[in-house]
Amino acid sequence: MSQGKPTPLSGFPEWLPAGQIVQQQVIDTLSRTFELYGFAPLSTRAVEPMDQLLRKGETSKEVYVLRRLQADADDASDAGLGLHFDLTVPFARYVLEHAGKLQFPFRRYQIQPCWRGERPQEGRYREFWQADIDVVERDELPFHYDVELPLVIADALAALPLPKATMHVNNRKLCQGFYTGLGLSDPMAAIRIVDKIDKIGPSGVGAALAEELGASEAQVSACLALADIRTPDASFADQVAKLGVSDPLLDEGIEELTRVVTAAAEHAPGLLVADLRIARGLDYYTGTVYETFLAGAESLGSICSGGRYDNLATAGTERYPGVGLSIGISRILGRLLGRGDLTASRTVPTCVLVALPDEESRTGCDRLAMTLRRRGIPTEVAPAAQKYGKQIRFAQRRGIPYVLFPAAEGGTELRDIRTGEQAPVDVASWQPPAADLRPRVTTGPA
Amino acid sequence: MSQGKPTPLSGFPEWLPAGQIVQQQVIDTLSRTFELYGFAPLSTRAVEPMDQLLRKGETSKEVYVLRRLQADADDASDAGLGLHFDLTVPFARYVLEHAGKLQFPFRRYQIQPCWRGERPQEGRYREFWQADIDVVERDELPFHYDVELPLVIADALAALPLPKATMHVNNRKLCQGFYTGLGLSDPMAAIRIVDKIDKIGPSGVGAALAEELGASEAQVSACLALADIRTPDASFADQVAKLGVSDPLLDEGIEELTRVVTAAAEHAPGLLVADLRIARGLDYYTGTVYETFLAGAESLGSICSGGRYDNLATAGTERYPGVGLSIGISRILGRLLGRGDLTASRTVPTCVLVALPDEESRTGCDRLAMTLRRRGIPTEVAPAAQKYGKQIRFAQRRGIPYVLFPAAEGGTELRDIRTGEQAPVDVASWQPPAADLRPRVTTGPA
Repeated sequence: MSQGKPTPLSGFPEWLPAGQIVQQQVIDTLSRTFELYGFAPLSTRAVEPMDQLLRKGETSKEVYVLRRLQADADDASDAGLGLHFDLTVPFARYVLEHAGKLQFPFRRYQIQPCWRGERPQEGRYREFWQADIDVVERDELPFHYDVELPLVIADALAALPLPKATMHVNNRKLCQGFYTGLGLSDPMAAIRIVDKIDKIGPSGVGAALAEELGASEAQVSACLALADIRTPDASFADQVAKLGVSDPLLDEGIEELTRVVTAAAEHAPGLLVADLRIARGLDYYTGTVYETFLAGAESLGSICSGGRYDNLATAGTERYPGVGLSIGISRILGRLLGRGDLTASRTVPTCVLVALPDEESRTGCDRLAMTLRRRGIPTEVAPAAQKYGKQIRFAQRRGIPYVLFPAAEGGTELRDIRTGEQAPVDVASWQPPAADLRPRVTTGPA
Repeated sequence: MSQGKPTPLSGFPEWLPAGQIVQQQVIDTLSRTFELYGFAPLSTRAVEPMDQLLRKGETSKEVYVLRRLQADADDASDAGLGLHFDLTVPFARYVLEHAGKLQFPFRRYQIQPCWRGERPQEGRYREFWQADIDVVERDELPFHYDVELPLVIADALAALPLPKATMHVNNRKLCQGFYTGLGLSDPMAAIRIVDKIDKIGPSGVGAALAEELGASEAQVSACLALADIRTPDASFADQVAKLGVSDPLLDEGIEELTRVVTAAAEHAPGLLVADLRIARGLDYYTGTVYETFLAGAESLGSICSGGRYDNLATAGTERYPGVGLSIGISRILGRLLGRGDLTASRTVPTCVLVALPDEESRTGCDRLAMTLRRRGIPTEVAPAAQKYGKQIRFAQRRGIPYVLFPAAEGGTELRDIRTGEQAPVDVASWQPPAADLRPRVTTGPA
């Protein structure tokens, strides 16, 4: 494969070794947290039939379509396939396809790359990793899952060395009921218009409500007042009440949102705010909606979004309502790795380098390494019998904390290369401090 | 997403929940083993430029090419991309692209899906997971890595509940030197012809050698005799010597293969055989080559293959020789899950189900669950306050081993649903046996 040096592909980020270790540990930490809550691992194929992917018209232009380079006309078995652009569509399809063999409610987590042909920019990639959790049930899904899921995410984010995260929660029933009670002709259209408030501003929203829905000045100002409500507790309900709109669906939305906010205030104080502006663009959400922002990185947009969907997966008379949240791993890491705000304490898993006195000693050194590995200590043997100074620098450049010197005579010695301390060691029993066993993810440059 | 029931896509296997847990644990076990040997995690993008993918002409017809559904003529930034069909090409490209920022020798493991548009059959999929380990060095890679890598694989396979694996090893220098010493006109062509012996038989190989290379009857019979040599130890060298061919490259190949076989006999007795028929079709191997077969599943083909490549990654005057091995995870699991030879002890990570006396107790039950989760015990709370018999069946159907009953008065009790034993428990200190903490991968049906 002789060639020039390859150049990076815009929109397809790849990390250097320290970043790879950070991403691996982020994925491991998320998986562990999700499993503590009983979410089962799921990995679906990368491809879906185009008709599944195009069901949501909005994203159709971003889909990557596949074709085999030399497809035969007589074999169309993989024609019409595209790469999934999220993990929700494949999950809904998996549930429908295997419903007869799944136990409901079905709780799963899924951590995989997704692909969208978007114009690359910070926080938006053409290939990006998502970590999703969802719960689906047959027919009816109890509301308490809307309350539980943000708490799982709270634990997951708290286990990572990230800036403070704030989750903004709303309920579409609240908005839809409010617009209905207000007398707007098309409440769903109003939700979509108000959702653009961060892009087109309150005046733009007002103009669109007036123009598209014939909203009066009083209706516009009520809609904008609702969108302005943001409270860290259940007091949003009083503020809504003051707007003087009444509707049964509005009441239901207020009650649901109150339950989410109240439970989160106990479990993860400071995580959640009720934010009546949040709507999520996608049409399939029917109740609670979530967006999450990192302190100091708000410009990235939401790093964890989702909501309740009552009609995403249906086949014939079968209906599988669900609620889910999706963490944007690449969006987070792109920012934090890119700015050097996160790194790993070393670029290799290796905890101990066994120094090599001479090439004849390799078999003995391999045996020493195996003794350590059998106790779970990642160990490699030096690649060549260079001078010990060079072998120590080999460890230093990678951040390997310990070098083991098999003594020609006398005892084997262990050197902590951070302190330079070197002392005899019993290879059969020595254990590194737990913090040294694996690379640590740290904030700030290595 | 209302629709009929989706149908599976041939060649894109997806496992049910128990199989998903098995695959996850296989990946975790492989990762842990590779890290014990100091291999660093690497994940590369799914796509490569087509000119990279087509460098190896043989596989060109299997590549999936991408296009954006609505690609603009003015943005060709992602034109000419295809999905990788293995993890070696992306790895070689990553090394060349980032060489200035990597530490050599660079040891990495990589566990990802790959895609080939092949006609699906058992053991061959259009999407399949591979687990690769490779070591690359700048300029020259010491031979001892050819010895080390099969030992890493031996540990990795031994840590999985698989049938006995046998790794067949050869050395291309041995074959090339033998054919040269024998006086064949084109030793590389001879390697490719003899590699087809399992498909076309010895007589087919003999005919091709005669026809394409003008080999004499004596030359043909020497080639076939070489291909017949298979020994569990270094005695292959004596058998080669008896064929009376001499060549410096042959001697080098014999010496290298002897080192690999001898080291493996100490570390993993019974794993390796020297098998002078193995060649690997791909042209880029230059020395040691490996293939691995599972007892009782030989018809699957090799489940772990690789070899030494001295010229795969080169850019200008830079040269990065390497040696690597690749485990076919989907090939193995497709067979073992498909036949029910592997399963998981439960279909969820959950170790404890907290029973729910009534919906008003949910907050208290959530707190009990959190107490267990904080000690690393995967726990979920029952979805609804059904009769306890139904809640116990909920646990049974998923294989959850324990149900916790928060007592209205008196103490909280824990039931082992396998034995039916139920006793008071101290939630603040109880720990399940280590074997129950996570689902176990077991042989035979659940």
